[in-house]
Amino acid sequence: MKSVIGKNITITLYGESHGQAIGIIVDGLPAGININTDFMQQQLDKRKPKGNISTQRHEQDDFKITSGVFNGYTTGTPLHITIENKSQKSGDYTPELPRPSHADYVAHIKYNGYEDYRGGGHFSGRITAPIVAAGSIAIDILRNKGIYIGTHIKKCQNIKDRDFKDYKTDIDICNSKYFAVLDENKEKEMITHIEQVGSDSDSVGGILETCVLNMPVGVGEPYFYSIESQISHYLFSVGAVKGVEFGLGFDYANYRGSEVNDQLEINNKNITTTTNNNGGINGGISNGMPIIIRCVIKPTPSIFKTQNTVNLKTMENTTISLVGRHDPAIFHRARVVIDSMVALALLDLLVEKYGEGWLI
Amino acid sequence: MKSVIGKNITITLYGESHGQAIGIIVDGLPAGININTDFMQQQLDKRKPKGNISTQRHEQDDFKITSGVFNGYTTGTPLHITIENKSQKSGDYTPELPRPSHADYVAHIKYNGYEDYRGGGHFSGRITAPIVAAGSIAIDILRNKGIYIGTHIKKCQNIKDRDFKDYKTDIDICNSKYFAVLDENKEKEMITHIEQVGSDSDSVGGILETCVLNMPVGVGEPYFYSIESQISHYLFSVGAVKGVEFGLGFDYANYRGSEVNDQLEINNKNITTTTNNNGGINGGISNGMPIIIRCVIKPTPSIFKTQNTVNLKTMENTTISLVGRHDPAIFHRARVVIDSMVALALLDLLVEKYGEGWLI
Amino acid sequence: MKSVIGKNITITLYGESHGQAIGIIVDGLPAGININTDFMQQQLDKRKPKGNISTQRHEQDDFKITSGVFNGYTTGTPLHITIENKSQKSGDYTPELPRPSHADYVAHIKYNGYEDYRGGGHFSGRITAPIVAAGSIAIDILRNKGIYIGTHIKKCQNIKDRDFKDYKTDIDICNSKYFAVLDENKEKEMITHIEQVGSDSDSVGGILETCVLNMPVGVGEPYFYSIESQISHYLFSVGAVKGVEFGLGFDYANYRGSEVNDQLEINNKNITTTTNNNGGINGGISNGMPIIIRCVIKPTPSIFKTQNTVNLKTMENTTISLVGRHDPAIFHRARVVIDSMVALALLDLLVEKYGEGWLI
Amino acid sequence: MKSVIGKNITITLYGESHGQAIGIIVDGLPAGININTDFMQQQLDKRKPKGNISTQRHEQDDFKITSGVFNGYTTGTPLHITIENKSQKSGDYTPELPRPSHADYVAHIKYNGYEDYRGGGHFSGRITAPIVAAGSIAIDILRNKGIYIGTHIKKCQNIKDRDFKDYKTDIDICNSKYFAVLDENKEKEMITHIEQVGSDSDSVGGILETCVLNMPVGVGEPYFYSIESQISHYLFSVGAVKGVEFGLGFDYANYRGSEVNDQLEINNKNITTTTNNNGGINGGISNGMPIIIRCVIKPTPSIFKTQNTVNLKTMENTTISLVGRHDPAIFHRARVVIDSMVALALLDLLVEKYGEGWLI
Repeated sequence: MKSVIGKNITITLYGESHGQAIGIIVDGLPAGININTDFMQQQLDKRKPKGNISTQRHEQDDFKITSGVFNGYTTGTPLHITIENKSQKSGDYTPELPRPSHADYVAHIKYNGYEDYRGGGHFSGRITAPIVAAGSIAIDILRNKGIYIGTHIKKCQNIKDRDFKDYKTDIDICNSKYFAVLDENKEKEMITHIEQVGSDSDSVGGILETCVLNMPVGVGEPYFYSIESQISHYLFSVGAVKGVEFGLGFDYANYRGSEVNDQLEINNKNITTTTNNNGGINGGISNGMPIIIRCVIKPTPSIFKTQNTVNLKTMENTTISLVGRHDPAIFHRARVVIDSMVALALLDLLVEKYGEGWLI
Repeated sequence: MKSVIGKNITITLYGESHGQAIGIIVDGLPAGININTDFMQQQLDKRKPKGNISTQRHEQDDFKITSGVFNGYTTGTPLHITIENKSQKSGDYTPELPRPSHADYVAHIKYNGYEDYRGGGHFSGRITAPIVAAGSIAIDILRNKGIYIGTHIKKCQNIKDRDFKDYKTDIDICNSKYFAVLDENKEKEMITHIEQVGSDSDSVGGILETCVLNMPVGVGEPYFYSIESQISHYLFSVGAVKGVEFGLGFDYANYRGSEVNDQLEINNKNITTTTNNNGGINGGISNGMPIIIRCVIKPTPSIFKTQNTVNLKTMENTTISLVGRHDPAIFHRARVVIDSMVALALLDLLVEKYGEGWLI
Repeated sequence: MKSVIGKNITITLYGESHGQAIGIIVDGLPAGININTDFMQQQLDKRKPKGNISTQRHEQDDFKITSGVFNGYTTGTPLHITIENKSQKSGDYTPELPRPSHADYVAHIKYNGYEDYRGGGHFSGRITAPIVAAGSIAIDILRNKGIYIGTHIKKCQNIKDRDFKDYKTDIDICNSKYFAVLDENKEKEMITHIEQVGSDSDSVGGILETCVLNMPVGVGEPYFYSIESQISHYLFSVGAVKGVEFGLGFDYANYRGSEVNDQLEINNKNITTTTNNNGGINGGISNGMPIIIRCVIKPTPSIFKTQNTVNLKTMENTTISLVGRHDPAIFHRARVVIDSMVALALLDLLVEKYGEGWLI
Repeated sequence: MKSVIGKNITITLYGESHGQAIGIIVDGLPAGININTDFMQQQLDKRKPKGNISTQRHEQDDFKITSGVFNGYTTGTPLHITIENKSQKSGDYTPELPRPSHADYVAHIKYNGYEDYRGGGHFSGRITAPIVAAGSIAIDILRNKGIYIGTHIKKCQNIKDRDFKDYKTDIDICNSKYFAVLDENKEKEMITHIEQVGSDSDSVGGILETCVLNMPVGVGEPYFYSIESQISHYLFSVGAVKGVEFGLGFDYANYRGSEVNDQLEINNKNITTTTNNNGGINGGISNGMPIIIRCVIKPTPSIFKTQNTVNLKTMENTTISLVGRHDPAIFHRARVVIDSMVALALLDLLVEKYGEGWLI
């Protein structure tokens, strides 16, 4: 079960960058859910490269649903989404020269030389497209239940976006944009910075911050299926993610308990906390406050500068200079992947708690 | 499968703080592994409270192995470890007053009032004792294969330990100590600080940093069973953990690719990377470099200062003043839980790659 | 996950015949279920040896619930049941002489000589006691939802019990008896026959037939979690079971479709089938008719007659003559194990369909 | 995880009879396995309808492998096989009239009217085509390891094939035939019988018997992953299977232990059993003898005779007369599905025991 995740809403992923098709099976959706293919395409569009800040590989990402939907509604049986690869360039590959900070070397060892090395093969970011397709279904289901998810680019080097303020409004702002920054000035600043970095043949990383609004109280399981365990399991499946934190996160190390404990209060006849340092989660279980997640996206390893590497055949030191189509930044495209993963992770826990009938 | 984790080396956890016994089943260990009960007890001792910096609840944590071991060796069938609760104080409980930043409130909603609220019930840190017992077996197996794990307290408020230098030596230092700080001066400073915080009726959090040395290249699976996914899934199962990062982690957001890409080189006929910003993991797969993991442990929510809470019966605002036995800090005791979780997580992936026969 | 089964209601099993204790963890039960310990003991009593037709090993089977129950109700967290072994006789064992048709030889190879060979170790029928304890909880839950399970001894050599007639009455008859035969004359005949077989130092097998009444329509999943797949997976976990069939079962091979198709009709405003050759299951899904399951229990391999075996040390042919405490028949004791397995299997599928909330 | 099976070699299945495509993902195959697409097609051809004894729906079953294979070898990442539906006839459907003994009624209730009812939708036997494609890979791997699988039609009403004699030769005979009967006279007799039954607008069931030769000793797990549990779990996933037995199976009820215990002996320096009533399995574990499995395939429910049913809209009794393309028998086509399921089930257990490296 290497490529399968989710106990109740289960996804199985396949595909390589230069193979015939990539895709995903979503298993566990109950019958009768209206599938919003327009929204699916919009979400896929957010993952597509655009402008100077992205690769020039342009895939249409026309997805097909080949099973599990009938007359626009889920049938209750597995839903298969497939996307053909059309724009792969066959080109010359040098699989003996692993690209630094990429999976090339480990894949070569792990798969004993049988890996499909073209364009990173199964490790390519392209494989996140089916995740977005599946995730868009999850996002749509949650939205229909009043649970909203949005992610903004919190930070890119020394440029920082403002914090979430009015959650619902800010989530809507995030979801309306291709480059999801809440503060428009910071948005421009970041884009300019990425263009600059790109023109330097370099790349840059960033931090994404996600908010999930209106999660019911009591979802998640103690220990192994805590919300944090579940979400991080999904998020770290995305190759570029190297850190995940909730609420105050690593900053907790700087405080005393009396400064950061979330005290309880009655608020409009509901129990809420005065602060939300726990990011909506206590003991692994949702407490009704907004769930706040941050993850870091490392700089795209593909840069055009000459770097050191080794020749796997000759076992000698050498250098590599990448050519082709690469992104100076991917966090803005990763944003919708993160939203998708969070939605799929939470949907699974919601069905665990309430049963599949709750989704309809 | 809420309380079960691990595909190949599977653990199933049970118990409550004030129940009769807590325990764990370890399933999947091949036959013929020598069980080092002395080491198991040593590891459990590292989790025990000691001195002024810990709770005064003193459990002997005498574990029993009631199945799966015969004549000192694993039989290949499920190994069950149980630990009786002996020192629980029945005392008066006020389950209607949830403690801030604890799981009391969410447990009450999730379990509809049927939760065992005494001492935090199933959410109690006490439940990590069986995890340490199971983890010590995993640590021992890995050590016998030349894979070493060690964790130090990297940071507590503004007191920072030095970085790992000579990994093997430093891991040994960590494992020889109850309060695992590499720099002895910083160790004293931190202990003094915790004592001070404790005498203020307060608590404090910290950051733990773990190193796994000699992981073979090619372990871990792309996407859902990436090493990062797997380890974070296990680590976030520990209630107090609110952030997990690998290698450079969140700091990646501050750099350009050219500054942080790990370039490859031949080193003693082996392929290594010049830097280790990826923390030993590319594309979710081990690359042979030390695996570097950091997690943050939030300040113990149990403090003696008066805090706001609500009365769940009357649904009115009120205050709570905890009495009893609490820790001003738990990260030093959590250290061995983290080691255990990391070992169990990696053992599972190693068996995935090499089969159970590899363990013997 | 060798010793773990069930996606929603998960059981994890451990223990050896002569170890300190055997037990089971039941994970996934929602909070608020009243645990009927009297019924649990009654069910365990049905598994105990009694009279001349059973082994003379007499275990009290006093079970303890050490977690997951508080004030008589489930807490929603893992429920652990343990039973101490008290009556094991240390005796002399000759692990080098595998008993014919037992697991001794395969265990020796599989576990490389590290198996706990005493009394069959983990393969002992004794390990079914915790299954009965867990199963009794499942049976009780189903009964409270109006779903009834009963099993009778359908056949023992050429002695056949009558068919189920009035299902509810017959299920009650089965459950009221230690030796569950519907026809009292046949019951006596079978007991006399077993006593005769036992006095011949021999053993005998039989067929058990189970009925599940009032299963709601639409439970079970197509393909891999069909009711037949699920139930057979559980039933074949019982060592002595060598065949499982549903409805007409193997007899289907003797008929034409027109003779055995279950035609549909309106019956009291409900849709039923005129016949029930499919045993309540179509396409793997319950159709509302009684679920009919038969399984065969092979003769206990432990007989007192001298048999051929090999000496695993010398690798020479030799003979073995068992002494000690053995059952001339076990199907009457296996009955309650089968009921338990069926209940656990179906409970898991019911939660899959309706969510855990349905159980309460 | 409804449509996912296998812990080590995992398959995820999707598709409907009249959807765009059906398919399967095979996850867990190590890198470097040569994929024999000719053999895959041969196996699919055995599942195709041929002659008067089968439906006249003729699908080419041209499969595509869209990922996981590169230059003819597995890459170690998920292998996706897809088959387009081309010959579906749109026709008029009457979903309100469920066909007797089909899944129509239960699907309608389970999926609340959202099921794809065309041609049985997801419940169609057509969905077994991807299973055969995946299974053919498993069969091929096992064959390369010297493990052979073959199935013959043991019985069709009162016509019985001879028993397996020389296992290897007989397996080869089975696998060389489209209609797998060992005795050529019986083969003709059965075919004539099926033609007769077909011309009577009726259908007929049968018993399939499978042999697995050269299974290593010690594979399978006690209890929940016994070979019997595992194989039956897979086999009962096939809609038409209503009974599964191993070795002597249900016939065990007719004998005493002394008559049917498999005594051990040294045979050519190997340990074997004098008889093989346990069908190669003790305590759920392989003992090195041929594994013998029988399953019953019920008569195809689709017959042309008028049958009683109910109108789901009006809730009135009515009749149904099927038209279209149906098989008077399907067991001969099911044969290769059974072989596939057995191979996939055993491959999963072999990897559990020996690790994925063993497969190469």
